[in-house]
Amino acid sequence: MITQEQCQQWDAKDTLAIFKNQFELPQGVIYLDGNSLGAKPRQATEQAQAVINQQWGTDLINSWNKAGWWDLPVRLGNKIGQLIGARENETVVTDTTSLNLFKVLAAAVDIQQQKDNRRKIIIAERDSFPTDIYMIEGFMALINQGYQLQLIDTPADLADSINQHTAVVVLSHVNYRTGYLHNMASTNELVHSHGALLIWDLCHSIGAVPIDLNSSNSDFAIGCTYKYLNGGPGAPAMLWVHHRYQTAFSQPLSGWWGHEKPFDMAVSYTPADNIRRYLCGTQPIVSMSLIECGVDIFLQTDMQAVRHKSLQLTDLLINLTEQECAGLGLTLITPRKHEHRGSHVSLRHPHGYAIVQALIARGVIGDYREPEVIRLGVTPLYLSYTDIWQAVQHLKQVLINQE
Amino acid sequence: MITQEQCQQWDAKDTLAIFKNQFELPQGVIYLDGNSLGAKPRQATEQAQAVINQQWGTDLINSWNKAGWWDLPVRLGNKIGQLIGARENETVVTDTTSLNLFKVLAAAVDIQQQKDNRRKIIIAERDSFPTDIYMIEGFMALINQGYQLQLIDTPADLADSINQHTAVVVLSHVNYRTGYLHNMASTNELVHSHGALLIWDLCHSIGAVPIDLNSSNSDFAIGCTYKYLNGGPGAPAMLWVHHRYQTAFSQPLSGWWGHEKPFDMAVSYTPADNIRRYLCGTQPIVSMSLIECGVDIFLQTDMQAVRHKSLQLTDLLINLTEQECAGLGLTLITPRKHEHRGSHVSLRHPHGYAIVQALIARGVIGDYREPEVIRLGVTPLYLSYTDIWQAVQHLKQVLINQE
Repeated sequence: MITQEQCQQWDAKDTLAIFKNQFELPQGVIYLDGNSLGAKPRQATEQAQAVINQQWGTDLINSWNKAGWWDLPVRLGNKIGQLIGARENETVVTDTTSLNLFKVLAAAVDIQQQKDNRRKIIIAERDSFPTDIYMIEGFMALINQGYQLQLIDTPADLADSINQHTAVVVLSHVNYRTGYLHNMASTNELVHSHGALLIWDLCHSIGAVPIDLNSSNSDFAIGCTYKYLNGGPGAPAMLWVHHRYQTAFSQPLSGWWGHEKPFDMAVSYTPADNIRRYLCGTQPIVSMSLIECGVDIFLQTDMQAVRHKSLQLTDLLINLTEQECAGLGLTLITPRKHEHRGSHVSLRHPHGYAIVQALIARGVIGDYREPEVIRLGVTPLYLSYTDIWQAVQHLKQVLINQE
Repeated sequence: MITQEQCQQWDAKDTLAIFKNQFELPQGVIYLDGNSLGAKPRQATEQAQAVINQQWGTDLINSWNKAGWWDLPVRLGNKIGQLIGARENETVVTDTTSLNLFKVLAAAVDIQQQKDNRRKIIIAERDSFPTDIYMIEGFMALINQGYQLQLIDTPADLADSINQHTAVVVLSHVNYRTGYLHNMASTNELVHSHGALLIWDLCHSIGAVPIDLNSSNSDFAIGCTYKYLNGGPGAPAMLWVHHRYQTAFSQPLSGWWGHEKPFDMAVSYTPADNIRRYLCGTQPIVSMSLIECGVDIFLQTDMQAVRHKSLQLTDLLINLTEQECAGLGLTLITPRKHEHRGSHVSLRHPHGYAIVQALIARGVIGDYREPEVIRLGVTPLYLSYTDIWQAVQHLKQVLINQE
């Protein structure tokens, strides 16, 4: 039997509790949606002022060099790289997750074609966040070379589906809906053993679980900065390419920011000899600059500590739900096993949508995803054990009122 | 003989002079680079605070609906549309100019293929801003269907080059380097008479010259919001598609923001039945929100008035340079004819780079473009006739010191 007092004791011993003060959250709100839009770092207000008033307003065009705007995609990429086991200059921040998937998919397909043009299958998960599938469809239709998309229904299906015809596999490291977490190293090994390449979508894992792209021998990764990394609404996405592939091909969204010498105004494209070749056009500097505020908070801690508390909080959320809400119609769809759990908990209920709305009215902000899924995100840097206790009490009341 | 007194008299009668107060410019600076990075509207500071502190910090995920984040690309597109002769829902703000070119190029090529698959030539200008050429190259290489890029050297070459093999023509409405302005209606007519489609790059004309995309019978247009429109560094770009083509094809960067029902999480892509199909991934909301500040200033005036003052200022800059700097090595490369002049003046000089640096040290901010080009942008809403007088006096001193 877990009690509120027990939660308070855990809070008193929580070494990450000090970080909450670096975020600004409205009074009376328990925010369980940091997996969709991360909370605002306090520093973001000041950072925006500096960028807008000083860099733009006063220094004007000079800020491209003086304020380092031009180098921001790589500089931020290297900071984020520290959280995901990247080497220097393997990561950039640019454009959107969807567009970055298009770039690395074109890269992966091109690299495979150089080796063996008979591999024509791209494997993805039916349950992935749909934009990944949509971008694969758009790419395949555009190149019109007989590629086919094969959708797998469960993670276990990958081993049965992959074979010598598979060119590329696209997987969500953590599933946006269920919270299922793939084992990165063993999945890379499986995919590589069949001669295929793997693109990791890190949208729901970056800033939520420890990631080591190099030691797990990954190929490509893309992901989002505005969820667990708290980069701000719609902030540009990240893209990582293992250094062995960085100059193996030229990606087709070949805008001037990816050019070897952008200011030479050459009449033909020559890609940069490094990760910059994954850049395309001029980036939204104000939004991009704010990403640094969230990342700098993560760089003060370490992902193992974040993971430890994340698992404690998701365990607590699962256990308390079972203790307090038994018989009230909830079905857990997030894996119980730690090694397959990301940092959110999803509960299915026939009235899921109405329940989420009722929770929001009580200041407990989660979100709803089709079909019937109540999704509750856990962000260890600004949530306490007591927050989880209170959230479950509200959930219980809502469910009882529902009956 | 033009005198400083004459400039002061013009300023006293200038009906647009009142707008300068809506921009924040540093003391002692004459800013002739608004064609590269527009000055900061005063309102941008307050707007950023509202978006960052209230919408992100307090309202959090709720702002996607409550603050209209989700609809921002179309809402801003419709505001910009008023400046360019667009109908309702023909314009969006999203991604970058480079990426938007890729989308409309794919659209234009697809539409042509539906009619006649033998047209395999894409015409562009050797002198265009290079990213346009780079994106065309990337697209052609990716689809690998035998398309060829034909570069024309002068605007007059278009008539000789276009024929029944031409699929698509990509032109800069105003050339980034020379300031040459194409006649939109007659060029559309020429291109259409050969059965080709035309994509206008408006980067150096939107907010600078009057544009009427519908009455000129244009097909597609893309462009930039951070130059003459003062949208902020790297702010997302615009994209316009004539309504006759809006649903004629599905663009290949088919991310979830372009889906017919994005929140249904459907497993396959169905494009929205409107201009939203040109969207792709989640947009950088803070940068995007600031665009409105600049556009709202333009909506208080009209583009004919802006154009009138623009031509007076560029005339003044050209005439004063000839009067004050005769024999000092400058060559005008911007067209003298009003109908072929955008809103910047470019002067070639063997020591162009050093001259621009010396001008910047004196607080006269223009920029340098290869080869040897001193580029001076004229923005009628925050420049005075006296500013031009003073800028030319500085230029004269720099040239004399150079000798």
